Formats: sequence, structure tokens, C-alpha cells
Amino acid sequence: MSGGDITCAAAVGCGVIGAGWIARLRLSGIDVCAFDPSPAAPDVIADVHANAVAAWTDLGLAPTDDRVGSLTMSDSIEAACADAHFVVESVPERLDLKHATLVAIDAANDDAIVASSTSGFRPSVLARPMIRPERLVVGHPFNPVYLLPLVEVVAGERTDEAVVERASALYTRLGMHPLRVRAEIDAHIADRLLEAVWREALWLVNDGVATTEEIDDAIRYGFGLRWAQMGLFETYRIAGGLGGMRHFIGQFGEALSWPWTKLMDVPELTDELIDTIAGQSDVQSGRYSVRELERIRDRNVAAILLALESNDWGAGRTLAAQRAHRG
Amino acid sequence: MSGGDITCAAAVGCGVIGAGWIARLRLSGIDVCAFDPSPAAPDVIADVHANAVAAWTDLGLAPTDDRVGSLTMSDSIEAACADAHFVVESVPERLDLKHATLVAIDAANDDAIVASSTSGFRPSVLARPMIRPERLVVGHPFNPVYLLPLVEVVAGERTDEAVVERASALYTRLGMHPLRVRAEIDAHIADRLLEAVWREALWLVNDGVATTEEIDDAIRYGFGLRWAQMGLFETYRIAGGLGGMRHFIGQFGEALSWPWTKLMDVPELTDELIDTIAGQSDVQSGRYSVRELERIRDRNVAAILLALESNDWGAGRTLAAQRAHRG
Repeated sequence: MSGGDITCAAAVGCGVIGAGWIARLRLSGIDVCAFDPSPAAPDVIADVHANAVAAWTDLGLAPTDDRVGSLTMSDSIEAACADAHFVVESVPERLDLKHATLVAIDAANDDAIVASSTSGFRPSVLARPMIRPERLVVGHPFNPVYLLPLVEVVAGERTDEAVVERASALYTRLGMHPLRVRAEIDAHIADRLLEAVWREALWLVNDGVATTEEIDDAIRYGFGLRWAQMGLFETYRIAGGLGGMRHFIGQFGEALSWPWTKLMDVPELTDELIDTIAGQSDVQSGRYSVRELERIRDRNVAAILLALESNDWGAGRTLAAQRAHRG
Repeated sequence: MSGGDITCAAAVGCGVIGAGWIARLRLSGIDVCAFDPSPAAPDVIADVHANAVAAWTDLGLAPTDDRVGSLTMSDSIEAACADAHFVVESVPERLDLKHATLVAIDAANDDAIVASSTSGFRPSVLARPMIRPERLVVGHPFNPVYLLPLVEVVAGERTDEAVVERASALYTRLGMHPLRVRAEIDAHIADRLLEAVWREALWLVNDGVATTEEIDDAIRYGFGLRWAQMGLFETYRIAGGLGGMRHFIGQFGEALSWPWTKLMDVPELTDELIDTIAGQSDVQSGRYSVRELERIRDRNVAAILLALESNDWGAGRTLAAQRAHRG
């Protein structure tokens, strides 16, 4: 079975990540059965779906009703997974909960691919209690799942390579960019980079160097504009001039030994620091509701994707491929 | 004198950063006298100016000849600075060289603002040997200087507040976003975040977890698209859902204590690691020359700025303000 044969998926765990998966799956014509014990789940799923429809409309991918997969709310993991070809697990990041959920999925369905959205755990650790670990793969998406193309694909020690290939084919069909992570490592790739920035940013706030808004501005008026289209290394290759990467490292490598970060140390999340951050964030963003911020973010990301598509580059190529696939 | 009265600037140090300043100043109608002892400097200045003209044309800010400031190559710091209202210092990041340069500028001109492009040094440290430290300010730009709006503005202990205000007014006139950094700290704000990511990325390459291209893709298909328009905190506020920032920290703060980064430790830049990075970078980007990569980067950044301008958001607002100022 290739990714193209997957017509029915299950979503176990329907917070903002699970709901994002549901929206992306349904807008790609795949039927979804969903399970989440929270009474708020149907509302979260509906809100995220509405955001996704608006964003895809911005992208020129407005869905027609006959192309949107159905949604069925199930009252158990067993019921949600019974007929699925592909199960997405997006429960909170607690290993005991992940294990219990994966065991229940394992018992409910013999041959579906099981894809965990975990941002932190290694697939071999997740698969430990499973009877059929060969079908577990990590497919780690990024919020908003219906809009950002990246999905980190990680196999465990016992994962069948065919499962990785089928999952990757499905992700491509969903308009995503599956990035095969070749080594198992806590937090995979992107979240390690994000965690590094997060720690340093917390220090900057903690030490009163900058507010949350000033840190955000330092990102979005500067290197954020570089990273939407090239990453770290390709950007630095250019900075090295005609001497390229080797010259860049020679010129700036020494800074590694300078006291430019406080990352040897982890800031303590005291109540005071949390109050400071939450208060500064209110000053920065409080004039918008979260719903408004979501819409602003999505309109901007869609506009950036369209701009990059016009330039035939990076994430814009993923969008072009999605458009071509859609026909 | 407000920033608007500055009609003549000097650039001391004309590598890629100094040349970027020269282009931005001249395209904003300001005459520039430049000094750099390197015989390659005139070519660097010409190449960067050509890139800047192409980028501003993409932005709809195509310069007309009568609006472009003149360029004079001087054969000494003294000659370059004699008539300047504003001196930009962009020599390499070595404290002895910065000090010698600033002393020479200090002697050459009595009342110009002296703005250092330093990415790492605190202004109070830079100003130590100056006779007139009150006119030194850090104005730290980001490559490509003619295109990215961010400039970090930092005052030293003895800097005159009026100097900070005049420099900031000039940066605004140049179409930039002056971000006042309220505390002196090595590497200011943005480069601390960049340094944190750089360290973790070096570990990922060093340990064979990911190649330079995989790391770049993890950025540009994912969180890079968020950071071009919102930063870290506003993005996470959304991720916290209706509970906002406080909920987000409660949910994910615990990860701080997990072994998600190796940043307690600094990778050693062995010849082997440098070879690995340079080789992977060649595989990733070697099909483009540095000139081609510059043009690709600039076209993409310009397209993103235009997209954000259409949405009246973030760096797009800086562009709109520049357009309005230009009339």
C-alpha cells in the first residue's frame, strides 16, 4: 500500500496538533475518525478546521465540499482506529500516557501505520510496549499543522522501512515536506534548535535585558526573514563571501568560546519569571485575541508561501507540488 | 541636528557589512566617503551596491540616479571622516582593531556620531579609549544590510541620549527598524539567539544526527516561516491556546529540565568538523555561486517583505513607512 491508498485515518488526541492533522487530512480528501476524552475536543477540531479552510483559501486551495473527508467523533480509541489505514497519535507529552495510548491502538487495529506526533520522545522508546513496533513511526509536525510543510519522520530500531516510505508518501500527498531524521535523538532536530533559543530568550527576560516583544522584534525584523527561505548554514555560506563556509567558520568560529550565551545554565521557571513573561506578553499581544492572532499568523504564512512559490524556492515548491498533485 | 539633517556619512571598514551600509546610505540619498585598506574593497562595495539596487528594484524602490548619494574612496580614516555627520565603523571583530579605529575616528572629526556595527562588543568597552565617548553608539545591522530592517541600537554608559535619538532617526529614514537594546550585554540580543542555535546545530552535525542541509530544511520548512512574521513569544502565546502564555509555559516549561540540548558544552571546531561542515555545505549549495545565492536570498526576502506589506504586518510596515517617507 502506498501513501495514495490511504483513504481512512484515525486521530487519537485532538488538541491543537491533533486537530491540525485532522484538518490537513480532511482537506486532502481523507476520512477521519477522531477520539479525545476532553469535552472541548469537538470545538477545538471545528475551530482549527475553520482556520485551515481560511488558510487554504488564501493559498488558492479552497476546498469544495465533495473533496473534504468526513469527520466521525468516536467514543473510544478502539472505535476510532478499527477501520483506519493510518493512525495519528497526538496525546500530551507524557511517556506513560503515550505508552498506554499506543498499546490501545496496537490492540485495536492489526495493520495500520501508527504515527506519533511526539516532539520529544524517540520512536524506539515509544514502541517498547507495542506488540507490533515495526509499524510505529514518528511524524512530528509543526503548528499550524495545516499550513507549515515540515514533518520530521523518525524510525525506531524496529520500524519497518516500508512504513517510513508509506508515511512519507502520505505526508507528500498532504502537501508537506517529510524530513527523514536519520538518527534517533530526544526532540529530533527542529525542537532542539527551538529549545536552545527558548533557553537563551528566557535568560534575556529573566535578566531584564529585553522584553518578550523586543526579543520577538529582534527575530522578525532580522534573521527570521532569512530563515523563512534559507536556513542557518546556507545563509552563513553566503556570509563567508567567495570563501564560502570554510571562510565563515574561520572568521566567526572563535566566538564559540566567548561568553555569548548563558546556555551552560538553565533558568529556573520561578513564579516571578512566569509572571514577567505573561505580563510582557499581554502588553505585546494582548490587544489581539488568540483567534485573531491565529488568523494574522496564518494570513502571513500563506502570503510568504505564495511569495516563495512565485520564486520557485523552498517551502513555495512544496506548495506548488501540492497544487500540481491536486490537479 | 535630527537624523534628517545627515547628508554626508563615512564608512570605515568596507567588508560585506560596511558595503551594505554604504549601499543603504547612498540609496537613501546620503553621500558616503569610504575607507578600507584592502585592495578588494572597491569591488566588494560595487558588488554589494549592485545587489542592493536589484533588491530595491524588486521592492518597487528603484533608485533614480539623482537620488543616489555619491561614493568617494578615501585613502585614510582621517580623510574619510573629515566632513562626515555620521561615521559607521565596520572593521573586523577584534577589540584592539576596533579601539585603534575608534581612536583615529575620534581624532579626525569633532562632532560626528560614531556608530559601531559590532555584533559582539558592548559600547562602553568600545568607547574606553575615546576622547568623546558620548557620541559612540552601537548600531548593529544584519546581513544583507540593504534589505533586513533590523538594527540593534545600544548606548554605552557615557553615550549622550541625543546621539541615540539622532542615530535612530537616521535608521528610520534609511528604512530600518531601530531596536533599542536597553542593557549592555555581549552580543546584544539577536546574536545571542543565533549563537545558541549555531552551537546546537554544530553538535547535530558533529554527532552525525543531521547534515547542514537537513538542519536548514528543518528551519525553512517549519519555524522559519513563523519567525519571519512573529517571533518566539507571540507564536508560543498562540500555542498556549485560549490560556495564552501562562498556559504554554505550564505545558512545555518542564522540557527545560530535559536533556534536549547539548548546550552545556561547546563543540570543539576540529579540522574534521570543519571539513564535514564545508563538505556538506558544498553538497547542499555548491550548485550555486555565492553571487547566485545572494540574488536568490535577496529576491526571496524582498518577496516576503512585499507579502508582509500587503498584510500590513511586521517588517512589511517598515517597508511601507520607507515608501511613504520616500514619497
